[in-house]
Amino acid sequence: MTLRLGTLRRGGSGGPGTVAVRVDDDAAVEIGPPDVGALLADPAWRGVAAAADGARHALADLPPRAWAPPVPRPGKIVCVGLNYRTHIREMGRDLPTHPTLFAKFPEALVGPYDPIVLPAHASGAVDWEGEVAVVVGAVVRRVDEAAAARAIAGYAVLNDVTMRDWQYRTPQWLQGKTFEATTPFGPWLTVADDGAPPAGELRTEVDGEVVQRTPVDDLVFGPAALVSYVSQVVTLRPGDVIATGTPGGVGHARDPRRYLAAGQVLTTTVTGLGELRNDVVAED
Amino acid sequence: MTLRLGTLRRGGSGGPGTVAVRVDDDAAVEIGPPDVGALLADPAWRGVAAAADGARHALADLPPRAWAPPVPRPGKIVCVGLNYRTHIREMGRDLPTHPTLFAKFPEALVGPYDPIVLPAHASGAVDWEGEVAVVVGAVVRRVDEAAAARAIAGYAVLNDVTMRDWQYRTPQWLQGKTFEATTPFGPWLTVADDGAPPAGELRTEVDGEVVQRTPVDDLVFGPAALVSYVSQVVTLRPGDVIATGTPGGVGHARDPRRYLAAGQVLTTTVTGLGELRNDVVAED
Repeated sequence: MTLRLGTLRRGGSGGPGTVAVRVDDDAAVEIGPPDVGALLADPAWRGVAAAADGARHALADLPPRAWAPPVPRPGKIVCVGLNYRTHIREMGRDLPTHPTLFAKFPEALVGPYDPIVLPAHASGAVDWEGEVAVVVGAVVRRVDEAAAARAIAGYAVLNDVTMRDWQYRTPQWLQGKTFEATTPFGPWLTVADDGAPPAGELRTEVDGEVVQRTPVDDLVFGPAALVSYVSQVVTLRPGDVIATGTPGGVGHARDPRRYLAAGQVLTTTVTGLGELRNDVVAED
Repeated sequence: MTLRLGTLRRGGSGGPGTVAVRVDDDAAVEIGPPDVGALLADPAWRGVAAAADGARHALADLPPRAWAPPVPRPGKIVCVGLNYRTHIREMGRDLPTHPTLFAKFPEALVGPYDPIVLPAHASGAVDWEGEVAVVVGAVVRRVDEAAAARAIAGYAVLNDVTMRDWQYRTPQWLQGKTFEATTPFGPWLTVADDGAPPAGELRTEVDGEVVQRTPVDDLVFGPAALVSYVSQVVTLRPGDVIATGTPGGVGHARDPRRYLAAGQVLTTTVTGLGELRNDVVAED
């Protein structure tokens, strides 16, 4: 059975804080550490998670907001620019020889079913970018792709929601990519044996309309290649996240341009990894 | 008397870990928390630091390598692109209307007197960028410049050492900016009353030759403006660092281009904040 690991907010059951859980077919089973990031810091995390037999929460009874980002505070979030082959070719560009990397700060993350609050004081151009996220499960530095694959704990869904006006007002994208509490991540970490990447498709929908759809094996730089590449620059650690890039279909590239509006529902799905479902709401 | 706060590695005195110290004229006085980042998390940090009366280490007896980065693991390091007025004008460019922001991961930091190990496997274009670094001393979100100034704990020196080949191989600079253990930071945090920025000059030297020299009040976006701006995007927290940008004189912009070579000494000084002194060494 596929091992799936999530982080639950105890708020729903009256207590403070969070707890890492194994997500079985019908229940979330408490493991012990406060979140999946803390769990992954234990080199024995796979065995610990598989053997966990803590308090059980029926999935049907859990409110959506009980789910936190599986790793609520990654040490690093590395994002990848244009990385889908078909989309690059349809834009008439050459395939890149190196991945374009930028960062996102942990404060940007929200849970898989949390609302995305439009920062209306700042941006009128909030756009979607559905992505597959790699979660690192070991300490890795300067490794080849085979060792990189073994260091991948697994995968989750992420939507790299972007303030386009802030992204493009200067040559560096960071400020448009790291707005507080705007990047949904989850719903849980689906553990991969030897880093095997997900198959199937990535799909982003706005109010049920499919706006992005791509096979997830169309990446120029796949998960193991990205982990290997980043590890040449800096040590990757358990819980670090690499967001692998978004395919075509973003709102900013449409004619006319489209952005998220209050009242919409943004849904991001990857075959086998689950679904993010986020209400887009106006700021109070 | 100016309050100065540093982080000492206990290794020099036989124990593991680090300890925050108050840097008096002749001695470093232990405060208690493991580093300046942990100290700043206590809202009463100014009073705690001023009153500290722990173990004293005569400055003359401390080996240079005893000094760690004052905040060894900032939650966020935000770097600013072209921000020195004179340099922008001499390049014939217009002054920017918004600061260009990019990130650096904490693994990039080294202490003020640590060696900079050239990543010879990867880059042959390692360049200097002397900078003034702002250290945040409070939680701030969407604040104006007056409140931002009050949230500044103080200042330190940082050299945003950059792998130019990696910086420019893609449109985003992150990968050239965040190489492991290449960014010296320190020598300590010089506390500023109400965020008053440093006066005087920033100077970078290679083997004693001055390669960058500028008045530090020539910034387009000063420290309080930067803290205010970033706080519109994301919450800043105690220990977060903003590197305010580098003036002209980097090696990559010279004709012919110049880069750091093993055997050189890189010195970065800001009036009133102290000096970083780093041997440039070849990898084993």
